[in-house]
Amino acid sequence: MAEVDKQALLQFLLRMGDNTLILGHRVSEWCGHSPVLEEDIALANTALDLIGQTQLWLGYAAEVQGEGKTADDIAFLRDAWDFRNVLLVEMPNGDFGQTLMRQFLFDAWHSIMLGRLMKSSDKTVAEIAEKASKEVAYHLERSADTVVGLGDGTEESHSRMQAALDYLWPYVGEMFESDDVDDAMAAAGISVDPASLREDYDALVCKILSDATLTIPESRFAHKGGRTGYMHTEHLGHLLATMQWLPRAYPGCQW
Amino acid sequence: MAEVDKQALLQFLLRMGDNTLILGHRVSEWCGHSPVLEEDIALANTALDLIGQTQLWLGYAAEVQGEGKTADDIAFLRDAWDFRNVLLVEMPNGDFGQTLMRQFLFDAWHSIMLGRLMKSSDKTVAEIAEKASKEVAYHLERSADTVVGLGDGTEESHSRMQAALDYLWPYVGEMFESDDVDDAMAAAGISVDPASLREDYDALVCKILSDATLTIPESRFAHKGGRTGYMHTEHLGHLLATMQWLPRAYPGCQW
Repeated sequence: MAEVDKQALLQFLLRMGDNTLILGHRVSEWCGHSPVLEEDIALANTALDLIGQTQLWLGYAAEVQGEGKTADDIAFLRDAWDFRNVLLVEMPNGDFGQTLMRQFLFDAWHSIMLGRLMKSSDKTVAEIAEKASKEVAYHLERSADTVVGLGDGTEESHSRMQAALDYLWPYVGEMFESDDVDDAMAAAGISVDPASLREDYDALVCKILSDATLTIPESRFAHKGGRTGYMHTEHLGHLLATMQWLPRAYPGCQW
Repeated sequence: MAEVDKQALLQFLLRMGDNTLILGHRVSEWCGHSPVLEEDIALANTALDLIGQTQLWLGYAAEVQGEGKTADDIAFLRDAWDFRNVLLVEMPNGDFGQTLMRQFLFDAWHSIMLGRLMKSSDKTVAEIAEKASKEVAYHLERSADTVVGLGDGTEESHSRMQAALDYLWPYVGEMFESDDVDDAMAAAGISVDPASLREDYDALVCKILSDATLTIPESRFAHKGGRTGYMHTEHLGHLLATMQWLPRAYPGCQW
């Protein structure tokens, strides 16, 4: 593979793996704090699925990088400016409703994206996508059901879900941005142009949010910069401080 | 100095320095987030005073320890179980009222304690106490005024201050606990029995909280374990992850 393509593939893999890593960590923050036991277990399982997918994406990234690093090195020894996740997944948990709204908005994109990646010209990418898509189909079913249940619930739950949607909607657009990395990946048949996912996404999200009696904000303004590494929110730094603390404090430690 | 006294002196200095370090960090978390600019600056100045005092206490601790470490090493390269601050100072900021209530409950103890330490048989301790006491007199004046202003304020501010007092009061008792370290320090004339501060503390705190129209909870139950290192709350681990992130991620870095 040409060097330029290898660098683009690495960036693409970091984007996929950082999304699942950061969201997985965020969701794990709920462990032991959920409103009911069933939800606590469901959230912990979701977090574990995402961290498992991270292991695959970043493990492959380490292989492509070819510097002898592991997925753990990539996850735990980079600083904020090297992360390539979309800003949406680093946003704070807020209340339970906000966490599930963030999950739904990401799951919808994730599910569609993985469906495309199952046809990737890169065999490893296709295999990871196939494994992950089964888990994500369940994540989406669960987050969509919860968004509908809370959105079309009590006055209090409805207003909280609307507030969560209003807060998170400006972070949706970034998932459909394209740059040179995406162009190179699409040209090689490894991935697709993110913009090409938007129609399916809007159809799915509109349906569910309509069932949830929620109103999608009109503005299409999108915060961005996370997936390109141009800038992250201050939330990411705090998340990394907690997430990376152990391997930073005890370098090279082993279980 | 006998080895046992040296170890006790070290523990005493860590207790003093960890109190100011952890509270100083907590207060610094408000930087840029305070309700009004004047308070933002006042809180940042309080944090800086406390961090400055930390430099003195932990600098002396490093000297007594005699292992060639600096105050920075002690502050940034220990893990939670090695910290000796009282639990009160690691409690979360909560709202502005809770932060100021925590500050007042600590300032009142701090002010009385430093007054005693100014007469310490250890010249360095006496000098640090003299310098710090001037700053802390101002901290106490300000936190007491704010507690009265908010406690005897609107219905909303009153109920928040009462809630803050109810939440924090169980962490007050630890400041007056004694153990072998305190006995050794009192015997050497370096410090005093913490229990001997309680009468003055209660008189001061009752006066201010009464002016604030707040009710002191009846229970004298006290969470403890922080100053002995027996146990800390989970809040300390998160605080350390953030506070220690830079020197952990970039070992040996210099400005």
